[in-house]
Amino acid sequence: MSDFSYLNIQKAYENIKHTLDKTPLITNDYINQLLDAKVYFKLENLQKTGSFKLRGATNKISQLSKEHKLRGLVAYSSGNHAQAVAYASLQENISAKIIMPNNAPKIKIENTKKYKAEVILYDPQKEIREEIGKEIEKKENRILIKPYDDYDIIAGQGTAGYEISRDLANLSITPDIYLCCCGGGGLIAGTSTYLKYKYPNIKSFAVEPYGFEDTKISLINKKIISNKPGFSSICDAIITPQPGQLTFPINLKTLSGGIVVEDNEVKNSIKILAEHLKIIVEPGGAVAATAALTNKINLKNKTVVVMISGGNIDLDRFSSL
Amino acid sequence: MSDFSYLNIQKAYENIKHTLDKTPLITNDYINQLLDAKVYFKLENLQKTGSFKLRGATNKISQLSKEHKLRGLVAYSSGNHAQAVAYASLQENISAKIIMPNNAPKIKIENTKKYKAEVILYDPQKEIREEIGKEIEKKENRILIKPYDDYDIIAGQGTAGYEISRDLANLSITPDIYLCCCGGGGLIAGTSTYLKYKYPNIKSFAVEPYGFEDTKISLINKKIISNKPGFSSICDAIITPQPGQLTFPINLKTLSGGIVVEDNEVKNSIKILAEHLKIIVEPGGAVAATAALTNKINLKNKTVVVMISGGNIDLDRFSSL
Repeated sequence: MSDFSYLNIQKAYENIKHTLDKTPLITNDYINQLLDAKVYFKLENLQKTGSFKLRGATNKISQLSKEHKLRGLVAYSSGNHAQAVAYASLQENISAKIIMPNNAPKIKIENTKKYKAEVILYDPQKEIREEIGKEIEKKENRILIKPYDDYDIIAGQGTAGYEISRDLANLSITPDIYLCCCGGGGLIAGTSTYLKYKYPNIKSFAVEPYGFEDTKISLINKKIISNKPGFSSICDAIITPQPGQLTFPINLKTLSGGIVVEDNEVKNSIKILAEHLKIIVEPGGAVAATAALTNKINLKNKTVVVMISGGNIDLDRFSSL
Repeated sequence: MSDFSYLNIQKAYENIKHTLDKTPLITNDYINQLLDAKVYFKLENLQKTGSFKLRGATNKISQLSKEHKLRGLVAYSSGNHAQAVAYASLQENISAKIIMPNNAPKIKIENTKKYKAEVILYDPQKEIREEIGKEIEKKENRILIKPYDDYDIIAGQGTAGYEISRDLANLSITPDIYLCCCGGGGLIAGTSTYLKYKYPNIKSFAVEPYGFEDTKISLINKKIISNKPGFSSICDAIITPQPGQLTFPINLKTLSGGIVVEDNEVKNSIKILAEHLKIIVEPGGAVAATAALTNKINLKNKTVVVMISGGNIDLDRFSSL
């Protein structure tokens, strides 16, 4: 076990606070009444690049040596980490090559290109992104920026938890429950570490799409277990084969369990979030809200923090929901 | 001229601060780069009831005498003031009757009913809402809550400006320009009064839809001038025949002019705000952003505050854009 702690997150916050946006923490009357709870939504869909991923990417990339920056970067991502690495690289004029699945949302591919990264599309049915990444890493001598299995990335994502705790402190509120989406587990590892430090009694839950509940199953079995093949989900941002080697031990320590939501439930939540919170949320970014809205966990009379992790959904897709 | 000043707004803020949400002030990298400016958006679409209108309605209604509250209220509104009066009345168990046009967005009519108000639909082509309102006021002895021509309403709306100035102070930022939608002029009268007090050099502009630029024309002529008949606009929230008797003298003192935007430009802005800010904005709530995004005013190198006043748009309508 590493000595990763809230201190890594405080340090990361000092490192990124001038580059990133402090995103709002909002509550909504309609939803509070609906759930008979007090729910605070952390709006990382309003973060630069449209997701929390810029926190980790900025924390990681800003700490690279001059020599590493000159060598250029490579990353693989379904899209949010892609945009984040591209954006953070652009700020420092670093060359970035990003490997993305050819079925990624258009908005994610286009934005990554807009941030001047070179995008390499692969076929997720036939190719393995980690292998393409490693090949480029070796051949071109680039630095691989992993999407979650890196303590600097985890600490960066954790800064969202730091901001949550500061906003809650201003409101003199202590949360009971934290619901967060979980793909590779970087965001929830970082944020739950910080929230657990501030609120030792908080219960944090990883929310995953049906068929991709690897973290839930791994938490139950107290070891890393991969998803079974053959499933698909609209939650493109959090479709990962198994928990990370670094994120899982952290999550095993801080989380109280996992919650599974289905695509149809997520679609419905996206509509509710649009109608009542007036925000645009992508499917992967809406799973934590979905867990709350479908009563998969009893929130009655509780104070709950819900992570809205991203908003990068194609508008025509959004409209079709 | 009245003695309406920033002091009314500070008093209103003390009155409503525990009931209302403090809405976020956000900036967006993409838009800042696009306009070569630093733009801060005040998200009143995230306010309870989906618009700023609850500020004024709460400030007004909470100050009514017990006897007046027992008599019940009546209000006319295209929808946002309707929801606000209904919501504020519901909090204090006051009977409310709301007169709404039969072509108002469904979401506005439904929410007003959800807040337990009695809704009376009228035909805006044939009937005049003020007359229906006055009739009910007299016949049923109810208290009329005007949408803008009331100092308590104006002061309530102004609290959005108070919050803006506090957030800007935390960022050590002094704004150069303020862009705000304008229907009857209550929101801009209140907020521009407060911003002018805090930033004497700020230039504030009323943004109106084409055909409804009564405030712009009235400012030029230094007297109240009505719109010519025969126009229509998708900006249902800010379609008013002429500036208010109380709001106009305030606006004449604080505003630097008016800007006109067209429906097609507004539609395009709504898309940009959805794609890049990840927020849902109704047409009337998007006109100030439209003025910025269409370069109707030179914002280069300026620090600009843009009011996003509401988000109550039917989702099917939003999707069709």
